[in-house]
Amino acid sequence: MDQFHAHTFRKILARNMRIRRAELDITQEEVALRTGLTQAYLSGIEREKRNVTLDNIQKIALALETTGAELLNIR
Amino acid sequence: MDQFHAHTFRKILARNMRIRRAELDITQEEVALRTGLTQAYLSGIEREKRNVTLDNIQKIALALETTGAELLNIR
Repeated sequence: MDQFHAHTFRKILARNMRIRRAELDITQEEVALRTGLTQAYLSGIEREKRNVTLDNIQKIALALETTGAELLNIR
Repeated sequence: MDQFHAHTFRKILARNMRIRRAELDITQEEVALRTGLTQAYLSGIEREKRNVTLDNIQKIALALETTGAELLNIR
């Protein structure tokens, strides 16, 4: 697994969040409302700038009606 | 998904880490060596006391020769 770089999981999460939002046709603002996180913070996650915590990954998974495994799945 | 409580993902991660360590027959000390994290911190994650970050989940997944999706998979 040496092709991983330090932020590979951030890239995977960001991509899966964008895909899932598109599937649900919802905005970052809607996810912010559902999670209680700010839209700016969510935007930072989707731009791989944030080292998000597990508790917040759980909030995001619930808001996106998916699972942690799906959010970290390499599609 | 209302049967989730605030730390469900911590429970899932902790369980999968313990299972994976047992499968590999390695100690928390060995995972500490592989990740650069402390054994005490890893112990805290496995006792659901730590809100671990995504970058550290990646280090743990690599050390346990598994994936993020597997670590958050509900077995």
